[in-house]
Amino acid sequence: MASLKRLLVGSPIRTARLAHERLTKKTALAIFASDALSSTAYATEQILLVLAAAYVAGQTDAFSRVIPISIAIAILLVIVAISYRQTIYAYPSGGGAFIVAKENLGTLSGLVAGASLLVDYVLTVSVSVAAGVEAITSAMVGTRFADLHNHRVWLCLFFIMFITVANLRGVREAGSLFAAPSYAFIFSFLCLIGYGLIRYYLSPGSIPAPNDADLKIAEGYQAHPLSLLLLLGAFANGCAALTGIEAISNGVQAFKQPESRNAATTLSWMAALLITMFLGASVLTHLYNIHPLEHETVISQIARIVFVGKLGWFYYVVQATTAAILVLAANTSFAGFPRLASLLARDRFLPRQLANLGDRLVFSNGIVLLAIFSGVLVWAFRGDTSRLIPLYAVGVFLSFTLSQAGMVVHWWREGNMLRGMGQAAGRSKPAAHEAMNSMADVEQLRRKSHWKKYLVINGVGAISTFIVLMVFILTKFLHGAWIVVILIPLLVMLFQRIHRHYLEVAQQLSTEGLAGLRPIRHEVIVPISGIHRGVIAALEYAKSIAPHHVTAVYVNLDDETTQKLREKWQEWGSGVSLVVVASPYRSLQRPLLNYIDRVKRSSHGEVVTIVLPEFVPARWWQNLLHNQNTLFLKGALLFKKGVVVTNVPYHLEH
Amino acid sequence: MASLKRLLVGSPIRTARLAHERLTKKTALAIFASDALSSTAYATEQILLVLAAAYVAGQTDAFSRVIPISIAIAILLVIVAISYRQTIYAYPSGGGAFIVAKENLGTLSGLVAGASLLVDYVLTVSVSVAAGVEAITSAMVGTRFADLHNHRVWLCLFFIMFITVANLRGVREAGSLFAAPSYAFIFSFLCLIGYGLIRYYLSPGSIPAPNDADLKIAEGYQAHPLSLLLLLGAFANGCAALTGIEAISNGVQAFKQPESRNAATTLSWMAALLITMFLGASVLTHLYNIHPLEHETVISQIARIVFVGKLGWFYYVVQATTAAILVLAANTSFAGFPRLASLLARDRFLPRQLANLGDRLVFSNGIVLLAIFSGVLVWAFRGDTSRLIPLYAVGVFLSFTLSQAGMVVHWWREGNMLRGMGQAAGRSKPAAHEAMNSMADVEQLRRKSHWKKYLVINGVGAISTFIVLMVFILTKFLHGAWIVVILIPLLVMLFQRIHRHYLEVAQQLSTEGLAGLRPIRHEVIVPISGIHRGVIAALEYAKSIAPHHVTAVYVNLDDETTQKLREKWQEWGSGVSLVVVASPYRSLQRPLLNYIDRVKRSSHGEVVTIVLPEFVPARWWQNLLHNQNTLFLKGALLFKKGVVVTNVPYHLEH
Repeated sequence: MASLKRLLVGSPIRTARLAHERLTKKTALAIFASDALSSTAYATEQILLVLAAAYVAGQTDAFSRVIPISIAIAILLVIVAISYRQTIYAYPSGGGAFIVAKENLGTLSGLVAGASLLVDYVLTVSVSVAAGVEAITSAMVGTRFADLHNHRVWLCLFFIMFITVANLRGVREAGSLFAAPSYAFIFSFLCLIGYGLIRYYLSPGSIPAPNDADLKIAEGYQAHPLSLLLLLGAFANGCAALTGIEAISNGVQAFKQPESRNAATTLSWMAALLITMFLGASVLTHLYNIHPLEHETVISQIARIVFVGKLGWFYYVVQATTAAILVLAANTSFAGFPRLASLLARDRFLPRQLANLGDRLVFSNGIVLLAIFSGVLVWAFRGDTSRLIPLYAVGVFLSFTLSQAGMVVHWWREGNMLRGMGQAAGRSKPAAHEAMNSMADVEQLRRKSHWKKYLVINGVGAISTFIVLMVFILTKFLHGAWIVVILIPLLVMLFQRIHRHYLEVAQQLSTEGLAGLRPIRHEVIVPISGIHRGVIAALEYAKSIAPHHVTAVYVNLDDETTQKLREKWQEWGSGVSLVVVASPYRSLQRPLLNYIDRVKRSSHGEVVTIVLPEFVPARWWQNLLHNQNTLFLKGALLFKKGVVVTNVPYHLEH
Repeated sequence: MASLKRLLVGSPIRTARLAHERLTKKTALAIFASDALSSTAYATEQILLVLAAAYVAGQTDAFSRVIPISIAIAILLVIVAISYRQTIYAYPSGGGAFIVAKENLGTLSGLVAGASLLVDYVLTVSVSVAAGVEAITSAMVGTRFADLHNHRVWLCLFFIMFITVANLRGVREAGSLFAAPSYAFIFSFLCLIGYGLIRYYLSPGSIPAPNDADLKIAEGYQAHPLSLLLLLGAFANGCAALTGIEAISNGVQAFKQPESRNAATTLSWMAALLITMFLGASVLTHLYNIHPLEHETVISQIARIVFVGKLGWFYYVVQATTAAILVLAANTSFAGFPRLASLLARDRFLPRQLANLGDRLVFSNGIVLLAIFSGVLVWAFRGDTSRLIPLYAVGVFLSFTLSQAGMVVHWWREGNMLRGMGQAAGRSKPAAHEAMNSMADVEQLRRKSHWKKYLVINGVGAISTFIVLMVFILTKFLHGAWIVVILIPLLVMLFQRIHRHYLEVAQQLSTEGLAGLRPIRHEVIVPISGIHRGVIAALEYAKSIAPHHVTAVYVNLDDETTQKLREKWQEWGSGVSLVVVASPYRSLQRPLLNYIDRVKRSSHGEVVTIVLPEFVPARWWQNLLHNQNTLFLKGALLFKKGVVVTNVPYHLEH
């Protein structure tokens, strides 16, 4: 086992190397942006899937609504990106929704944001991997591998395992694994958009008629004329494009110095790319009359039409890089989930095991947990993106809203502080000067003086994302969002329950009220199964720790054997008293436990030590040849108060 | 878990009730004979399956050979039954092949017999249950449950579980469960034979033509004209009728007193019934032109033809009782296997856990083991009787042969002793008289004086069964018997390996060479994770067992925390020295183990005690919230020689 782990994960890394495991902007873009950028591979399709409900109801122009909806989403995206740039500067040590909400809105809001983000990370992995597998199976349409579609759940699980292992190896190695596919995707997707637009304007007549034989409608929708609700539903579905945009603000610490500036620049680049690619894809679907199909993705259809003839090979480049980026997009969550879980664990809202850095300097437990949850989800929803999407964005937009609202409060407080300083300055120049010096960073102060502007920006962000959240719950509740709406409060309750436990433990373990070490009085019991070297070693040990308070106990299973033991005891007892207890039901454990209870009751607060003779076979399989009485007894004694269990092993050879 | 066990298995029974759990002859016949009698349900069919090979090769009278073959088997049966009656009298305390072979031919022969019997018991369960399920699925032919045939493996496993639970409840209760079905089967089968014969002689013209559409040939046979080998193969297959006949001699102790006489009478009854039923079935198949079919058993076909018209309901009585007896026949092995396993375990050839009486006074571990093995076998052979049969009788006839050969040696020795006594009597009457008195039992002596006759009887038995064994290996080796031929030596080697281990352990644990308890010198190490009440309890304990030899060890994971601990130690250390060890890879366990190793190396034979502070949460799930470092450390320390581990638990509340 250990060597298998080493082979997959690599050798341990020293703590001292922690500082070196930081990311350049290029690597960070590949890791953190893969989620957000990859969503362009399915966001447009999710809009079309809802519009298809109006299309089958007879409104042949329904699909053209993809353009205004995409523009609305792009505007929302700009607002959210600008909002998050502020967060990055205000929280250079990493300002995920959890931290921002907790500091500014209180612990409960922080926990709600934390729960939303955790759910979101799990869904990101599931949706991305499922969409990546769909890109692969789309490319197989018309080939003899067409039935790969039926094995998509296994493909998804395979990819999740692959990413898990990559991440367990450590964050920098993961970055170098993922950089090439990310940039290849950006390049091929931009080529698709560029060449698609040029081709359309050079030969607008060569567009094939849309294929409606295999038309797919979004999960939970039937034929229905265009209505506001339907448009809002399409908009909400398309908002999947925004998921992942917060990843950078959560992981500012992973950047090289200066962390904030590098992170903000990366965020801007990411937003620009995202808008270009998302709008480009939407425009192309409109120009090329693409309809959503059951067995082929929208992007695959566009690429097939655009790269026809001599450029046919480039279709496969697009599909391959799309699949790669999607599968690897899940990696964003593998950076984010364990980090957030460790923050929650450090604050004692999750098990403390999640706070430990593993031996490769990554939060191994969090990585494994994420792999399990997302694997289960993919399996439960049969790897179907369109069934996972309704669950997706509730958590995302809830955390957006809480984060932005927290930033509003943040700026309000900064403003109050500055005003306080200004008043102080009015009264006494030197005091204000001192206050300014104590801040040390003039740049910081300069930024803070714009607090009103920032407050407005984040306010707009908070309100917009809150509205979208409401739209989401309104349009998607019955389609699956209810699961998340129920799950998030449950998670928050779990966090609080865990927190209470840790507080209680700390209180119970506190040394308050104690005054130094107290002396202890002993009573030692040695359960014996006969007289052999193992038992003699235990008796010797027992006599050494409490020379005059040792009793040996023997369970009588057979009168004859017991009589022989009594005789042998004359020789070996060395003054230790022997107690024989009866066992009418041939059980060893029950009579022993009863005896120990009796001794405890009459011991007036003395510590009762059970010295267990135990022989340890030389080979593991030899354990099968011996009763595991000692093991069972140890287990039963663990729950008795005031009983100390001591194992005196006797090692066998061969 | 515990209460589920109680519900299924019942409350524990006191050891003192052991003597009351004996069987009357009627109950014993039901339990021990169910295996032997039930084999009449498939033995004739197994002969026909081989003869079918000649039938399809064009020899239309091939099936008539079933009569001479059955008579040969019946003669063999009489020989074996008479032989075993002798064993019962010679070994009133239970004379299975294992004991007889061991006492007279030596340990190795005993082990071979033991291995054969164990294999045989497992196969009995598998074959009987599979044949019982076939009786059920045969009755479904032509009804809408006809596809039950495809679920036969699950049905088999269900029945095995049912019998297992019944047996775990205890032997007498099992007897009362099984008596009614056994007698119902005997009654209905005798009715079938009687009415079948009467009907044939009253209206010989009403016999339908044989159905050959679905003809089945024995596993491994192709169309082949009648040859000696084919006839021997058919004979060998039919010898399945003899299996189970030894069960009574193995379990004489389970009878009421006088055990031997009751057991011998039961054996005679069983043999008489067995011959009547087996020959009756063979004669009917011949009279009614029955051919072996794929989807219906031979007995089902006979019963269908015999009980036609108004008596049609009796067909279902026959099938139901046949199924019941077959499924319950497995019960023979559930009495025999655990008993034999316990004998082997008492002689230290099997794990000693198999020697323990469970809390319902049955050998629970043996019962569970048998259930597992037979379940696996049924599953591996897809519940097909004809595929299991070739494996079946090798073990049976090997143990028959060894047992009878052992009896020959037994009588030879008795004879020698009597001759010795006779010579002594010739020299001095009183000495001979004394010798006779010392035997106390004149009846016993009277029997022994016939030793020559008995020697011949058992000799004939041994030679006949040995010949059949050779026939079996000759005709069935390639059809599956090779598995058993390989398995039995492997089992014997396992027995010997286990035996050697126990001998070595006994030697290593022997107190020889020791002289009383020696004093011990201590070195105590307390690994600590900080200073809290749990740690303080451990320190107090450590100081009490070795006041001046306690060291606390702390693993430095973080310099700042370590510094704080050092400061706090001034207050709480009470003179105990604190050692801080470094951990460059953030592991707790490795540095601690290394430190313990260093102390051990420099301790010059002193005992090193590790006192582990451990807090025990009030509820099991709370363990998930704490690092299981103590647990892992305990596991790692178990394999270090000369290290004693002491747990000082600190119990948390809530």
